[in-house]
Parts: sequence; structure tokens; C-alpha cells
Amino acid sequence: MDNFFIEAVKEAERGLAEGGIPIGSVLVHNGKIIGRGHNRRVQNGSVILHGEMDALENAGRQEAKVYQESVLYTTLSPCPMCSGTILLYGIPKVIIGENKTFMGEEKLLKERGVEVIVVDDARCKELMDTFIKEKPSLWNEDIGV
Amino acid sequence: MDNFFIEAVKEAERGLAEGGIPIGSVLVHNGKIIGRGHNRRVQNGSVILHGEMDALENAGRQEAKVYQESVLYTTLSPCPMCSGTILLYGIPKVIIGENKTFMGEEKLLKERGVEVIVVDDARCKELMDTFIKEKPSLWNEDIGV
Repeated sequence: MDNFFIEAVKEAERGLAEGGIPIGSVLVHNGKIIGRGHNRRVQNGSVILHGEMDALENAGRQEAKVYQESVLYTTLSPCPMCSGTILLYGIPKVIIGENKTFMGEEKLLKERGVEVIVVDDARCKELMDTFIKEKPSLWNEDIGV
Repeated sequence: MDNFFIEAVKEAERGLAEGGIPIGSVLVHNGKIIGRGHNRRVQNGSVILHGEMDALENAGRQEAKVYQESVLYTTLSPCPMCSGTILLYGIPKVIIGENKTFMGEEKLLKERGVEVIVVDDARCKELMDTFIKEKPSLWNEDIGV
């Protein structure tokens, strides 16, 4: 298993331990994590800090070139907001834990030339399955339904 | 001129006065502003707080129904990130100041059923024209180029 992917899963687990939505992400540039984060809807009352957004925000202001050489790891298929952010910054590659509990904008990403790899990881799916079962309305809020 | 649109322009001007990128936004529900904001790249060192994102974040956690009944005003055509966020939350209508200095994802929004109205406002265009001329590298950073 890819070590960076393991770090994204750790972020998801950190979010869960905080009472939040268990989705984590890391942004990797030149073999180094430059930003890591997890969904903060519950913790910060944030409607924009999905896991991927938190990782990007924590990476801070970067030159365009850095994003264009980076890989974004996320435990769940990226929603329209996070996919749009991937497109804005021209991140060329996204590694996704699973897309069974939620299918994001993978088709749009591929159409725009982003390399999309789905790991189909059992732990990521278990985290979301359990969470959605326990807190369905919180999950629905996070995806705008 | 629509009063809500004027408030979005005021937000852009507020951002400029703070030394930031002059793009503002308001989220309107049932004839009332529930969130307002402006680009905070410079002020907060944020890579995700575009004007629209700041307005949504400041509106706080809302039920899906609220977004689905809202109108988002923004002084500039929304980038892929902000457009993705509009799609995530199912905001049905977006009123845009101008799209001459930057063309966002208006086509995608329309394809997905969002009503898109471009005001073609001279003040919005002037704010961006002047800003881009004075700080081209800061503007490029904001749109990932």
C-alpha cells in the first residue's frame, strides 16, 4: 500500500475521532506531503472544508507549477467542489480510496485530462458505510442533499 | 441596479481596500442576504476563499433546501472551484458581474441546469482590469496559472 494513501486514511480516522465526517486527504509534491487535512464540517462548522479542500488550504499559497506537479490523495471520490478545485489548480493526478459510497465528478476530471486512480480500499469504504448509517442527515448535508 | 448586486460590488471594493483581490459575492435566500464575502487570498493566505466560497462559508451550515432556493451574486464569472461548489449545493441561479477579464465555468453551469445571468457591469470590469494590470502575478496565482 502506498504510504501517502495510508496518511490520507489516517486523516479520515482523525476526523472520525473528532466526531467529524471520516474523509481525509493529502497533497503530495516531489515525494513529500505538502498539505494534509480532513473534513471539518462538524469541527469548524465549515461548508467548504471537505478533506481535499482542507489539505489544499493547509498546503498554503503555492506557485501554479507546484500544483501542476502534485498528486492529490483522497479517501473518497471528490465531489463537484473538490473536483472543481483540482481543475482550477491543474492538479494532474488524483488517487481515490473508494467511490462506492459516493461517486464524485470522476468523469468530468477524466474529460479534462486528470489521471484518476481508484484504489477501492476496504477501510475507506467501511469508514463511510458506518458513518452514513449512523449519521445519514449529517452526510446528506455534506453533499447538499 | 439590483441591490444585492450592489452589495456584492461593495464586498469586492472592501477586498481591494484590504489589499486583496477585488472579487465579492453575496448569497441571497428569500430576499435576504444570508452570507457575504470577498476573496481572501492575500488577507488570510487562503487558496480556497474566493469571493463566492467566502460568502458560502460565512452563511454557515444550511439545509440543502436553503441552497436550492438561493441566488448567488458574484462580481466575476465563477472559476471551476466556485462553479463546482454551486453544483455541489444545487444553487439554481447565479448572477455574475462580468466575464470579460476572466471566463469561468458558465458553460458547465448551464449544462447542469443552473440559470446564469451576466450583468456586464462596468465597475466590476474596471476593478479587475486595474487589479490585473497592477498585480498580474497575484491574479495568476488565484486562477492557478
